[in-house]
Amino acid sequence: MSFVIGGKTINSRLFVGTGKLPSYEMIKDIIREAQIDVVTVAVRRAHRGGERENILDYIPKETIIMVNTSGARDYKEAVKIALIGRELTNSNWIKVEIEADTKYLLPDNEETIKACEILVKEGFNVFPYISPDLIVAKKLEDIGVSAVMPLGSPIGTNKGLVAKELLKAIINEIKIPVIVDAGIGRPSHAAEAMELGAEACLINTAIATAKDPIKMAKAFKMAIDAGRLAYEVGVLKEKEYADASSPLTGFLRGV
Amino acid sequence: MSFVIGGKTINSRLFVGTGKLPSYEMIKDIIREAQIDVVTVAVRRAHRGGERENILDYIPKETIIMVNTSGARDYKEAVKIALIGRELTNSNWIKVEIEADTKYLLPDNEETIKACEILVKEGFNVFPYISPDLIVAKKLEDIGVSAVMPLGSPIGTNKGLVAKELLKAIINEIKIPVIVDAGIGRPSHAAEAMELGAEACLINTAIATAKDPIKMAKAFKMAIDAGRLAYEVGVLKEKEYADASSPLTGFLRGV
Amino acid sequence: MSFVIGGKTINSRLFVGTGKLPSYEMIKDIIREAQIDVVTVAVRRAHRGGERENILDYIPKETIIMVNTSGARDYKEAVKIALIGRELTNSNWIKVEIEADTKYLLPDNEETIKACEILVKEGFNVFPYISPDLIVAKKLEDIGVSAVMPLGSPIGTNKGLVAKELLKAIINEIKIPVIVDAGIGRPSHAAEAMELGAEACLINTAIATAKDPIKMAKAFKMAIDAGRLAYEVGVLKEKEYADASSPLTGFLRGV
Amino acid sequence: MSFVIGGKTINSRLFVGTGKLPSYEMIKDIIREAQIDVVTVAVRRAHRGGERENILDYIPKETIIMVNTSGARDYKEAVKIALIGRELTNSNWIKVEIEADTKYLLPDNEETIKACEILVKEGFNVFPYISPDLIVAKKLEDIGVSAVMPLGSPIGTNKGLVAKELLKAIINEIKIPVIVDAGIGRPSHAAEAMELGAEACLINTAIATAKDPIKMAKAFKMAIDAGRLAYEVGVLKEKEYADASSPLTGFLRGV
Repeated sequence: MSFVIGGKTINSRLFVGTGKLPSYEMIKDIIREAQIDVVTVAVRRAHRGGERENILDYIPKETIIMVNTSGARDYKEAVKIALIGRELTNSNWIKVEIEADTKYLLPDNEETIKACEILVKEGFNVFPYISPDLIVAKKLEDIGVSAVMPLGSPIGTNKGLVAKELLKAIINEIKIPVIVDAGIGRPSHAAEAMELGAEACLINTAIATAKDPIKMAKAFKMAIDAGRLAYEVGVLKEKEYADASSPLTGFLRGV
Repeated sequence: MSFVIGGKTINSRLFVGTGKLPSYEMIKDIIREAQIDVVTVAVRRAHRGGERENILDYIPKETIIMVNTSGARDYKEAVKIALIGRELTNSNWIKVEIEADTKYLLPDNEETIKACEILVKEGFNVFPYISPDLIVAKKLEDIGVSAVMPLGSPIGTNKGLVAKELLKAIINEIKIPVIVDAGIGRPSHAAEAMELGAEACLINTAIATAKDPIKMAKAFKMAIDAGRLAYEVGVLKEKEYADASSPLTGFLRGV
Repeated sequence: MSFVIGGKTINSRLFVGTGKLPSYEMIKDIIREAQIDVVTVAVRRAHRGGERENILDYIPKETIIMVNTSGARDYKEAVKIALIGRELTNSNWIKVEIEADTKYLLPDNEETIKACEILVKEGFNVFPYISPDLIVAKKLEDIGVSAVMPLGSPIGTNKGLVAKELLKAIINEIKIPVIVDAGIGRPSHAAEAMELGAEACLINTAIATAKDPIKMAKAFKMAIDAGRLAYEVGVLKEKEYADASSPLTGFLRGV
Repeated sequence: MSFVIGGKTINSRLFVGTGKLPSYEMIKDIIREAQIDVVTVAVRRAHRGGERENILDYIPKETIIMVNTSGARDYKEAVKIALIGRELTNSNWIKVEIEADTKYLLPDNEETIKACEILVKEGFNVFPYISPDLIVAKKLEDIGVSAVMPLGSPIGTNKGLVAKELLKAIINEIKIPVIVDAGIGRPSHAAEAMELGAEACLINTAIATAKDPIKMAKAFKMAIDAGRLAYEVGVLKEKEYADASSPLTGFLRGV
């Protein structure tokens, strides 16, 4: 089930956020135990030299780092963070996350489009975090981003796919991959996203704040693989009436 | 993640129906590939001698057979089928399925209670298929059944957990295992049932009518294990407001 | 929009419970302001003579009293309460409510069937409160009850139609009226029940515990009439794709 | 229940689209029967002189016309249509509807913001139709629009509030009125929007394509008033466990 994204062939459709984990040490364990290929790292946690603990020291070399612009409030800040992040990490995978709102942490789609235009030209593989809006997704596809990352629900709410119909429209109408980001609280939510045809899921809070983040990461990994496999086989449609599982057809009468 | 049910220790929380699979040959493959411990078999498909193909020849000896009374229209027929089934299969695991309705194939809870009372006394491990009704589940628990099997939605509809609130009440209020049976159409539905605390899921139509039943069985197996693992770790609650994943806190301003 | 139920022609599809209202005095106001034709009354609140306040004194003569057996724990108690209730109220409309469970207050369908068999023979117009189970509804129809009253969700939870698919099956498959009872917390829930084809709704907690029960009763009355009217006109189906509301078709290009 | 919007005091919270009705004649009937104060009119249907039938001749003078820019593909077209519309109708209420997508007819939020900036400066009362995005709604509030009109679901789908959580965030976080527009298919959907705190609903397809548009308009009017009244009284919260409606407390034992 390997697939190509951002110019790389990877196996794991579970992307994991690192920012909220109880310890940096745990990052290694999660990557190993849940077979993770891609992690996101907020720029402020990555730094060269100095004495502060550096999150980059805990990420295996073969793991792809998606640098996160979280904290940026407009496109200029996002671009600036992206450039710093690339220098610090040597990764050109950038998650564009621009939040004007401090309560629901909803992304600013308009500023995000502007940042993506610049970052694509700067040679990044760009992964914008967006509100579920097909028109925005199409514009980003035209700009040349590597994937779009619509939210399932607001960050940290664990509500799952609260705008499923709008998400489906994006998945059905654009050709680049869709990675569902934010708000996925349970493995079943992630499986549902994959059954709809998402290419991957990015999970942060639901793993990081679980009682046992490593086990929860494994649970998400299995659910995501399950949902993807079902999608590839072909998800069955709902029916109004039941079909008999095992009709008796006179068996008993003949006994 | 092994557990005890019906007096046996088993590993797989995915139970599979055999009645609608494209071929009996496939049963073996599914049991092997999806690591299945329990299958259901309708009595009319199991028989001794004669020239008709016998489904029992395709089930490995270590696999537990849950005999299904499907086709029974009242408690007397169910008891009769159960007794015949035990003789044919040497299994005393009986799924009590009594349907008065031929459109939605909904179970007759009242007749089911009567059948269970008799079958428990006859020494069976009894697994009643029921409409999601806590009062009925409690009565069955008192009677001494091995588990209750409330429907997720009507048989073959693939609608998932259409009465989730009523199912939750059953899971929360009785002590015997709850196995969700019928209507589960996608791995995400099964994961959701497990996250609520179901002990296992019984899948029939959604595997049997998939384009590739073996792969779909594997997808369900992973989703069920994922949901169970999340349940054991502790499923996170929904929140109204977001928590910041990666607050910038002045990082950029300091650059 | 008048209709016949329990042998009487009535206008209002909103039935109201009286047991939890802040004062008996308010019953009159609600009946008048929200144009109510049927109220339920728990037997213990109705009595002849004595000094305790009698709820019956607050119910206008033209209002139909549906006596409620709530508090009954089995069919014998329900029958006893029904007989006492008829004597006290002179009404032979009986709501059969039998609860074995004290947490969710879910009805005992099996005992309810037994009570209804007896009460129909005793000449009552019988309105059983049930868990949403089509097989039970059919049995009650055969027995000769006046309507079935499946719960929307557990009493007092305000969750609305938590088992909508099971409710739809009942409405579609039986010929006697379906009155949705319990758990309806908002006017939109009641409208939804009516759009599905319910004949009426019985509301108790959501009106009685509102800050202004009279206004809330009026809100439910409008919503129920709205839902019914939409049902009669014909509720529109969902579509996957949009139809253009107002296509421009070259207008602007011609300007 | 009168309220102020766009500088005018009006009574009816049901706004109605006129573009898809079976006949212009019916507009008058709907306005009268369902007590409508505001209708939307697509510019191409309004014209001065000439021989084509003019929709404006069918709208009573006291009814407020909200001119609709539907058909516009970018902000420039929308502004042009708005200016033409004002000249033709003498109304400065403008619904900004800009659709780049021809399948789901989803609005282009970015172009919409640009159009609104210009139109507010031009002295219009501006009502932008948007995808449910709080950040966009806040920007529009800052620009000075009269209300925002997020979609319930894609135009003409009758799916109701498919992104309810995102809609709630808008209603809770901005101070200007929220009018739910598009996708509302049933009165219960409209009641639900009002219970959440929407100021009004704009209904088009669900009335225009009903078998009896006048009756369906009345149904929506009642449901909207019901939802609003419940909102004003205070919508009750959901509970996990039931409260007893009418506990017996030993009554029967004392009989």
